[in-house]
Amino acid sequence: MTETTDARPENSSAAAQHAVPEGFAARHIGIGSEGAAQMLQTLGYDSLAALVDDAVPASIRQPGALELPAALTEAETLDALRGFAARNQVMTQMIGQGFYGTHTPQVILRNVLENPAWYTAYTPYQPEISQGRLEALLNFQTMVADLTGLDIANASLLDESSAVAEAILLMRRANKKKAAGRIVVDADTFPQTLDVVRGRVEPLGLQIDVVDLAAEGLPEGEICGVVLQQPGNSGTLTDHSGLIAEAKERGAMVTVAADLLALTLITPPGEQGADIAVGSSQRFGVPLFFGGPHAAYMAVRSGMQRQLPGRLVGVSVDAEGRPGYRLSLQTREQHIRREKATSNICTAQALLAVAASMYGVYHGPEGLTRIAGEVHAKARALGNALRSDGLELVAEDYFDTVQVRLESEQVAAEVVSAAAEQGINLRRVEARTVGVSVDETTTEATLRTVLGAFGVHAELRVQSTEEGTQNSVPEALRRTSAFMTHPNFHAIRSETQMMRYLRRLADRDLALDRTMIPLGSCTMKLNAATEMEAISWPEFASIHPYAPEEQTEGWRALIADLEDRLTTITGYAQVSIQPNAGSQGEYAGLLAIRDYHRAHGESDRDICLIPASAHGTNAASAVLAGLQVAVVATADDGTIDVDDLAATIQKYPGRVAAIMLTYPSTHGVYEENVREVCRTVHEAGGQVYVDGANLNALVGLAQPGEFGGDVSHLNLHKTFCIPHGGGGPGVGPVAVAEHLRPFLPTTSVGLWAHDPEADQAADAVADGAPVTATPYGSAGVLPISWAYLALMGGEGLTSATAHALLSANYISRRLAEHYPTLYTGDTGLVAHECIIDLRELTKASGVTAEDACKRLIDYGFHAPTLAFPVAGTLMVEPTESEDIDEIERFIEAMVAIRAEIQEITDEKIALEDSALRLSPHPAAVVASETWDRAYSRERGAFPVARLRQDKYFPPVSRIDGAHGDRNLVCSCPPPEAFEID
Amino acid sequence: MTETTDARPENSSAAAQHAVPEGFAARHIGIGSEGAAQMLQTLGYDSLAALVDDAVPASIRQPGALELPAALTEAETLDALRGFAARNQVMTQMIGQGFYGTHTPQVILRNVLENPAWYTAYTPYQPEISQGRLEALLNFQTMVADLTGLDIANASLLDESSAVAEAILLMRRANKKKAAGRIVVDADTFPQTLDVVRGRVEPLGLQIDVVDLAAEGLPEGEICGVVLQQPGNSGTLTDHSGLIAEAKERGAMVTVAADLLALTLITPPGEQGADIAVGSSQRFGVPLFFGGPHAAYMAVRSGMQRQLPGRLVGVSVDAEGRPGYRLSLQTREQHIRREKATSNICTAQALLAVAASMYGVYHGPEGLTRIAGEVHAKARALGNALRSDGLELVAEDYFDTVQVRLESEQVAAEVVSAAAEQGINLRRVEARTVGVSVDETTTEATLRTVLGAFGVHAELRVQSTEEGTQNSVPEALRRTSAFMTHPNFHAIRSETQMMRYLRRLADRDLALDRTMIPLGSCTMKLNAATEMEAISWPEFASIHPYAPEEQTEGWRALIADLEDRLTTITGYAQVSIQPNAGSQGEYAGLLAIRDYHRAHGESDRDICLIPASAHGTNAASAVLAGLQVAVVATADDGTIDVDDLAATIQKYPGRVAAIMLTYPSTHGVYEENVREVCRTVHEAGGQVYVDGANLNALVGLAQPGEFGGDVSHLNLHKTFCIPHGGGGPGVGPVAVAEHLRPFLPTTSVGLWAHDPEADQAADAVADGAPVTATPYGSAGVLPISWAYLALMGGEGLTSATAHALLSANYISRRLAEHYPTLYTGDTGLVAHECIIDLRELTKASGVTAEDACKRLIDYGFHAPTLAFPVAGTLMVEPTESEDIDEIERFIEAMVAIRAEIQEITDEKIALEDSALRLSPHPAAVVASETWDRAYSRERGAFPVARLRQDKYFPPVSRIDGAHGDRNLVCSCPPPEAFEID
Repeated sequence: MTETTDARPENSSAAAQHAVPEGFAARHIGIGSEGAAQMLQTLGYDSLAALVDDAVPASIRQPGALELPAALTEAETLDALRGFAARNQVMTQMIGQGFYGTHTPQVILRNVLENPAWYTAYTPYQPEISQGRLEALLNFQTMVADLTGLDIANASLLDESSAVAEAILLMRRANKKKAAGRIVVDADTFPQTLDVVRGRVEPLGLQIDVVDLAAEGLPEGEICGVVLQQPGNSGTLTDHSGLIAEAKERGAMVTVAADLLALTLITPPGEQGADIAVGSSQRFGVPLFFGGPHAAYMAVRSGMQRQLPGRLVGVSVDAEGRPGYRLSLQTREQHIRREKATSNICTAQALLAVAASMYGVYHGPEGLTRIAGEVHAKARALGNALRSDGLELVAEDYFDTVQVRLESEQVAAEVVSAAAEQGINLRRVEARTVGVSVDETTTEATLRTVLGAFGVHAELRVQSTEEGTQNSVPEALRRTSAFMTHPNFHAIRSETQMMRYLRRLADRDLALDRTMIPLGSCTMKLNAATEMEAISWPEFASIHPYAPEEQTEGWRALIADLEDRLTTITGYAQVSIQPNAGSQGEYAGLLAIRDYHRAHGESDRDICLIPASAHGTNAASAVLAGLQVAVVATADDGTIDVDDLAATIQKYPGRVAAIMLTYPSTHGVYEENVREVCRTVHEAGGQVYVDGANLNALVGLAQPGEFGGDVSHLNLHKTFCIPHGGGGPGVGPVAVAEHLRPFLPTTSVGLWAHDPEADQAADAVADGAPVTATPYGSAGVLPISWAYLALMGGEGLTSATAHALLSANYISRRLAEHYPTLYTGDTGLVAHECIIDLRELTKASGVTAEDACKRLIDYGFHAPTLAFPVAGTLMVEPTESEDIDEIERFIEAMVAIRAEIQEITDEKIALEDSALRLSPHPAAVVASETWDRAYSRERGAFPVARLRQDKYFPPVSRIDGAHGDRNLVCSCPPPEAFEID
Repeated sequence: MTETTDARPENSSAAAQHAVPEGFAARHIGIGSEGAAQMLQTLGYDSLAALVDDAVPASIRQPGALELPAALTEAETLDALRGFAARNQVMTQMIGQGFYGTHTPQVILRNVLENPAWYTAYTPYQPEISQGRLEALLNFQTMVADLTGLDIANASLLDESSAVAEAILLMRRANKKKAAGRIVVDADTFPQTLDVVRGRVEPLGLQIDVVDLAAEGLPEGEICGVVLQQPGNSGTLTDHSGLIAEAKERGAMVTVAADLLALTLITPPGEQGADIAVGSSQRFGVPLFFGGPHAAYMAVRSGMQRQLPGRLVGVSVDAEGRPGYRLSLQTREQHIRREKATSNICTAQALLAVAASMYGVYHGPEGLTRIAGEVHAKARALGNALRSDGLELVAEDYFDTVQVRLESEQVAAEVVSAAAEQGINLRRVEARTVGVSVDETTTEATLRTVLGAFGVHAELRVQSTEEGTQNSVPEALRRTSAFMTHPNFHAIRSETQMMRYLRRLADRDLALDRTMIPLGSCTMKLNAATEMEAISWPEFASIHPYAPEEQTEGWRALIADLEDRLTTITGYAQVSIQPNAGSQGEYAGLLAIRDYHRAHGESDRDICLIPASAHGTNAASAVLAGLQVAVVATADDGTIDVDDLAATIQKYPGRVAAIMLTYPSTHGVYEENVREVCRTVHEAGGQVYVDGANLNALVGLAQPGEFGGDVSHLNLHKTFCIPHGGGGPGVGPVAVAEHLRPFLPTTSVGLWAHDPEADQAADAVADGAPVTATPYGSAGVLPISWAYLALMGGEGLTSATAHALLSANYISRRLAEHYPTLYTGDTGLVAHECIIDLRELTKASGVTAEDACKRLIDYGFHAPTLAFPVAGTLMVEPTESEDIDEIERFIEAMVAIRAEIQEITDEKIALEDSALRLSPHPAAVVASETWDRAYSRERGAFPVARLRQDKYFPPVSRIDGAHGDRNLVCSCPPPEAFEID
């Protein structure tokens, strides 16, 4: 291969090019110079530059170095972050509007949000090594289902506003009889939700009717679904039972966006007849985070579970017949259903759902009820004092939010500003209306200060007795049903217990803190401690998303700088950080393309070309953006079939809106012809969407914005070090070329005080609508990516990319004699990942790729990506962070597994009797009384000797997926289920 | 038992008394009201108050409630801590003098110092569940031995200054030929070290001669030992080889206090002929912490290891013949040797030694050398610039510290103040001399600012090439030998590797985050996350111990408030927080008593009465304070034998200085006669020292300062929630009655600028000498105890004590039919711990208490205290933090073990064949190919069914202690030693 290097542009310092610079980069890039030299030798290259030159087509290489600020040290980075933090103002946040102050129990902060065992875990697709986080998520589902009075809840959605949109789509497809009817949304819904929903339904040709249901009742005509909010945007607690009954009678379905804390006191939506409940679990211990990430929830009544968006944890059985958790009904999910998908959500908010669930576990139903009672009593005391002084309250009945209609706009402004001077943010709801939201953190002293800001001198009388609470909740709305009765919500009250529970669950799982996670397309790289450090600083974590701009200078400066750096890296004109998951970035990007065509009078462009190898989410996003999907075939070598591309374009003259391609392709190779593909589509009038999932193979080497892309989304939780959190949070910024700038997502309106003109824009949100409820999406985790870029600098980032290529090619080469790599580029090289093909072996032996994955657990490894993009294969992505020892350990395991396959092929052992098929091996199995297997216990438990000392045992045997889907159980099973005979 | 309650003072709300107040106390106290009710029922009490009244003698009960500020919530506590923090000023610290800026690698901060798996661990007396931290400490020992060029290093000492004192005592006893000769200490030694050493040697009747050895050479006469410092207090690098050769020739031993970082560049003391090296490892990544905790070190040449103070990790073999780490040579230690001990150090600085060792592992020898080279180059550049502008440097050759002799006192003051205005602290060494210490964190910009403060405009030219370094270190001092050649210092360079290494080691161990640690007398209670949170905040962690007072207002306010609260709790007149371990508190307290007698003309009082049941450290401390020990016998019921007490006093008329008693006694009971004992001793003219080790049984119920104590030390790492850190840090404040106030430890002098009069006091330190180098000892961890007190309030603390009693009595009662409790009070109750007596069982079955301890590991438990205070017993202290489920799990295990003992007694199985004797059971054993044991694998691994899912496996089988002591290996064994056949 080395002979081809001569053909490449000469570089005088080729040997040193892409070398790891000193400083943090040398901590992030695990390989080290000796390891790199060894790998290069194996690959037959004498420099990393030569390998890169061979792997990455010259036609797309960026000519110069990445022009980013020089790398900072870890200490300098923390100083710089402290500098940003100092420019934010920590206030007592009483703005409410879906975001509330809360006490994050420090034991949860430290042992979940600041513990790599939790935050570096991957989505629990491999259930045997995920029982800990699956239990935590099952707790979340059980808690939400109980609180909402519905049957089944999912394991989180992205944010409350998009969850309402998902609910609307769900009603639309579930309510087949009335699918053509309209969707009525109560006017007393958060303005940001109305904005997001409007933006979401428009591309699908739907419309929502926003109606003041309390005043006007349900409108005439066919209604498919109704959306209510409890308490309302105005803070009002409303007995929806009549309205819901009428809606149901008329064949409509009903969604209620409900506050989880309020549901401890009031009749839950499920008991009032609603079909769906959605909302946020933020106030269950998750910091404000300037708007996110927070776990939204969705619960539905029985019968709708197979249509639920998002992930769903269920209970199945393992090979020993014992209960085991797993993700259920994955066939519903977008990556399986592709263009038939009904939602594009993959990454959700697992880590935040875990935190919220632990808040529920720690407080239990009685604790949550007490907190809600105190919040309510304080709000009530505030309201009474305000009213007793003659002020007009907007609502008669309320839970935590008191809105006051003042005599004039000026008075309202003065109240807000007087409070701000005392360090308290109130909500300027509209010209004359000011809102005060009480939360768990509100003190009586604060309430007195608030009264002072209103010029009220009436006495504050807080009565948080149980009777007091009951009496002030309207009788019809008082909750009488029990909730969270499962022992999991009653067992843990002391911090010691919680600390141990969190450790026990974490110990059941494998995360990056114990093993490489060589998941192709997921880029499980180091999430460095310095990167993680700042996210829980109060100056970042305690800022309300709708705080006045002058209080958030530091946040906005950090975000702007991050967007700038990402723009430089990708070669686009602008980046918007708003989308809070890759799927949302895709959606926002496709929307920009669609809106661009419409703005240019080409509304007919409705076809989105998607290569067969694409991630299923691409197709799902296209559909949600109102586009139709046309699949482009893959050539034998794994590249896009250019003939089929031309033919497909021909088939839809004037209708091609875009092509969505992933680069390097999901086949793990840099396609030589990408510029040609882009040109072809451009010539057909289409736009080019480059999926940024594989950006880790490009940073510093090539820029999608330069080689033909018009828009890309990035995954900050892949390439830019935000940890996967066991399935979220994600951040999916969208990057666009100059001509698409006007079509980037806008910021939700609804903040009267801060942008008085924004209200007028409310009807104009269809173009470039906000995709999330808050201006900066998952802002709270952005310091992580900022820190990564600051620490690495351009040189470090480029070196990381080169080393990611090196590792992937090394693994591919080392495994070649045992497993072929399915696709390579023209030079025989892969990009940053390689597809290991087991199909021939499966044919010969019956051993499946899944068997190999489960057997890897016995070696202490997380499996590679299974069956994507090609069934029967494993996609391996080591990333630049893994060191050569860990890579060798992986190779050793794969080679040993290959030998076990050979034993089956050679008929030395039957497949059904083999350690491969009977893997993984829990401790309880290998130390069991009897052993009647055809191989030894040691072979089962310690297939290589070094496992004897530091061994991870999965807590369960292989889990039966089909059984779980057939017998769907999505809340905590009774403890007896786990009893051991 | 309940009938006796009538005799107690009536309390109308007895049922509610000592109930757990709402808030944090309910998180700290694990039992919960249902659990408490169940326990009380078992014990036959109808209220906790009744139990407490029965357990605690009325004669000592404090009449009123603890008058402490009301309990704060966790959020309020963090706010209050932020308030203290804001009153400290974070500066660039260039004072040096043994304390230097350093970059704590964030991966170590997060995964060690902020990870309960590391910080809640106990001292590794149970080696099988301590292999992780033992490996880390062995790395520390190996690193120190290598760097100092000596053969064996211990696992840390308390601080550099007291380590020098320990070295002097070691020379005194090791150098038998010259034991009567004097100890010569070079004048170029840190002033705080001179102060501490003076204070230490005086009670022993020794004296040190402080001599300017560079100018005057060794004095005439017999010399026992010489102490040198490298670099010196003046920053000077001196070639000591000639002086050392002369000293050795004259029969003296030599100690060098050396800077570990400098030793990467200069010839180590061992190679220059020194016998001992001591110093601090602080600048290896451990924050300044306002003076501590930091791990000091001591290394010695071969032949002296059996006389080393402190703990020593060694390598032995387990029952399978594989290598296993353990604490070696424990027979040297104070708890074994009692009054024959030569040092009283128990708790040292394990956690900080772990952090420092990981810094070494992460940087490796080449990284440390690079850091040292850069530090040196910067110092050199600074010195050159200063000199080129005509300023006079104190030293020709230096490593990191440049001292400048200025033209006048005024100029010196101006320089220091000009630097301070720019945020930089320099050292005012003396009237005209200003010192600047460069460290790893120093930037060139800072150096330029420093030059500006000196009014120097010369250019700064930093040349940190290897040649540059070599050339500026005097040739005779250039290090040529390799160090840290073990693979452990070469394997880990990436953060991912370090994160996994830390996890792997932590996983080998059992700490509070996985199991109750029912260690009698150790009080292993919850170390809450909120308590731990503040210690790494820069406003606490980055403050130099000798920073000007105006910069440390917050620190001093926090400490003063903590001392006040402890004064209130103990009933004394004043508390000094200075002693940085319990042993040091004992020492300081006894010194106060001794000095008090001397001040009252009673120098002849030299006898310290110590009950036979006392912790061995008591006796060791007494000896170090210049007292002689007279043992008082124990009566049959475990109390102090009052007749023997009277007889002993009679035996030493006019000579009784003090009695040291532990209350409740180490037998775990409240002795009724404690007031009488105190009175007896007082009448004999003695003082009463109440060892505060068992204060967890007193807080809020009784006050040692009130029932007869004149002085106590407390263990903040027991009763007041500082985590044990695997063997330190500890804090041992000393509390005294009014008349002893003048004899509390003073603060070390040597800070010319900040206390110009202090120099005059230098000769007067013998009375109330400082016991540690810095004014507030282990200041860095004091926010933990402050937070605990703030969170609990008086009511919470009292409730905690009552619940600690409840739990201990419950365990004692529940186990009574299986194992007798050795001692109880008159009412049949124990205090906060109980001694489970296995001696009869041992006699009948051969099963030892140690067997039970090792078998408990199979159940996932850390053992209780073994063989203290009575051989053949286990002392169990559950603390208030354990919940009833965990306590039941422990009881279940103990009952199951009792049944296994019965099988042996019944001759169903032979002792040698039993799971008890063959415990613990690593995974490699229970899943081994062959199994020829007399019991099943399941019995071995899963003696109770619930262990099957969440099981801790020890990484080794039982470790052979004797083998390790016979074959002493105290540095990392070669990797081949661990190879598995």
